[in-house]
Amino acid sequence: MPLLVVGSVALDSVETPFGKADEVLGGSATYFSASASHQTSVKLVGVVGSDYPVDKLDEALRTRGIDLAGLERAEGESFRWRGRYRHDLNSAETLETRLGVFSHFRPKLPEQFKSARYVFLANIDPRLQLQVLEQVDKPKFVACDTMNFWIESRRGDLMELLKHVDLITLNDGEARQLTEQANLVQAARWILARGPKTVLIKKGEHGAFMFTKDSIFYAPAYPLEAVFDPTGAGDSFAGGFMGYLARTDDLSEANLRRAVVIGSAMGSFVVEAFSITRLLSVTRDDIDRRVADFHRLVSFDQGMPS
Amino acid sequence: MPLLVVGSVALDSVETPFGKADEVLGGSATYFSASASHQTSVKLVGVVGSDYPVDKLDEALRTRGIDLAGLERAEGESFRWRGRYRHDLNSAETLETRLGVFSHFRPKLPEQFKSARYVFLANIDPRLQLQVLEQVDKPKFVACDTMNFWIESRRGDLMELLKHVDLITLNDGEARQLTEQANLVQAARWILARGPKTVLIKKGEHGAFMFTKDSIFYAPAYPLEAVFDPTGAGDSFAGGFMGYLARTDDLSEANLRRAVVIGSAMGSFVVEAFSITRLLSVTRDDIDRRVADFHRLVSFDQGMPS
Repeated sequence: MPLLVVGSVALDSVETPFGKADEVLGGSATYFSASASHQTSVKLVGVVGSDYPVDKLDEALRTRGIDLAGLERAEGESFRWRGRYRHDLNSAETLETRLGVFSHFRPKLPEQFKSARYVFLANIDPRLQLQVLEQVDKPKFVACDTMNFWIESRRGDLMELLKHVDLITLNDGEARQLTEQANLVQAARWILARGPKTVLIKKGEHGAFMFTKDSIFYAPAYPLEAVFDPTGAGDSFAGGFMGYLARTDDLSEANLRRAVVIGSAMGSFVVEAFSITRLLSVTRDDIDRRVADFHRLVSFDQGMPS
Repeated sequence: MPLLVVGSVALDSVETPFGKADEVLGGSATYFSASASHQTSVKLVGVVGSDYPVDKLDEALRTRGIDLAGLERAEGESFRWRGRYRHDLNSAETLETRLGVFSHFRPKLPEQFKSARYVFLANIDPRLQLQVLEQVDKPKFVACDTMNFWIESRRGDLMELLKHVDLITLNDGEARQLTEQANLVQAARWILARGPKTVLIKKGEHGAFMFTKDSIFYAPAYPLEAVFDPTGAGDSFAGGFMGYLARTDDLSEANLRRAVVIGSAMGSFVVEAFSITRLLSVTRDDIDRRVADFHRLVSFDQGMPS
């Protein structure tokens, strides 16, 4: 099934304890598409400035079956993010954000994108996320991401958006901020009562919870021996998750669980190198092997009753 | 198989967002024994002062098959800990520690304790942990806990201890401090190269990793809707883990994994009330049900290759 993503396409400059990257391909829609492209064809909607290395993006993404017909080229500077990770790699320190043309982004879906059955609204202004939903014809499954900034400044729009999405993905801090519940189970319940049937709470290196009304699923982050650059892990997770759902077109609980594990696998690959590099080189076999590793990681036999 | 624990027996005063408890039964050996007693008989070695409510301890523990013959009563004040948990419940703020008679603790094993096959050296001075090992006859499986204070002040003794234990349990911060490795996989490898065949790294609300030379197992913490008082979670985890191993007397990888889950279950029960209260009321059925819940929490079917 076709998968649509609307989000940022950026140039990232990143410093980690292991190296530096300057003006490399980044942005939520970029990471998401590169990750999801291992599962299904992806339609990307975003904006770049006149200075964006579109050839590079095109080479990386179009060859992976990602349709860039929705990538607007606007006059002006591209969205740039500069950040640094310290020794523990857990949280990025943002050194500079220049929104450029992204600050005037008004997502416009090409005609042939409007029939997308699976839709991911990456982390952009909830007003724009709502505008995207007005342009798609009865999608089957809509998921959105968000962040602290929108929770603070666009709470009303975000609450409206919640009524129209099937799933929201956010990190633990954002879930606590949105719901004012310190306990994640209670936070998830709060959100489930306001629209989404599924809540994915990401805890970075501590894994991810998927909550529905009746169940909780937990997938750890893969215990990697070397994390090179954590940028894009969340969007790659979402890409693997949504890509798998779109490919299998099966929204059963069992399949959602598999999708979370595929997402975790993609998140574990992307951090092995800067930018989307690793997402471009990873193979189906690599993904299958990592899924099997995840299975071994958490498997136990309940044995005899105690 | 008989299980021996050597550790602290204390009086705790705890404040959480949900209530206060004054001078209640606490200490690592107390939590450990109450938890392990659901699996096997436990022999406790510790010290209390002349002011300790031994009757209360006796009533709680002896009826659960815990042998207190190794509980020394010394002249002086008992070990007291006073702490507070803030809203997020993740880390205790220690308001006061009065070691009392615990500062002169020299563990002496009653003759009938020396043949214990399973031994847990709770978090005390590594010199004392080594002295305990000199008193037991060829135990089958020895595990130890430790903490930041000993890592800093008794590194040499701790490194010596590592050569003589089968397993060490410590939290993620302590593992990083001991090994000077930020990455937990590398930290575990560092420890595995220095004696223990198994390393259990506890991450509090983020679960626990078990590392051996050839495998990694991960068990999440149970996503509780209400955590009342986190005190004793680590020791209750260790009690469930060691108790299960001692009862089944099976050190296979599959059984170690089950033991971790039993430990996680006990850790999830103890935090539901102050002190060891919940450990005394929990039933075998409760434990089995929670183990089944853990199984559901992480289960996924790998499905078709991607």
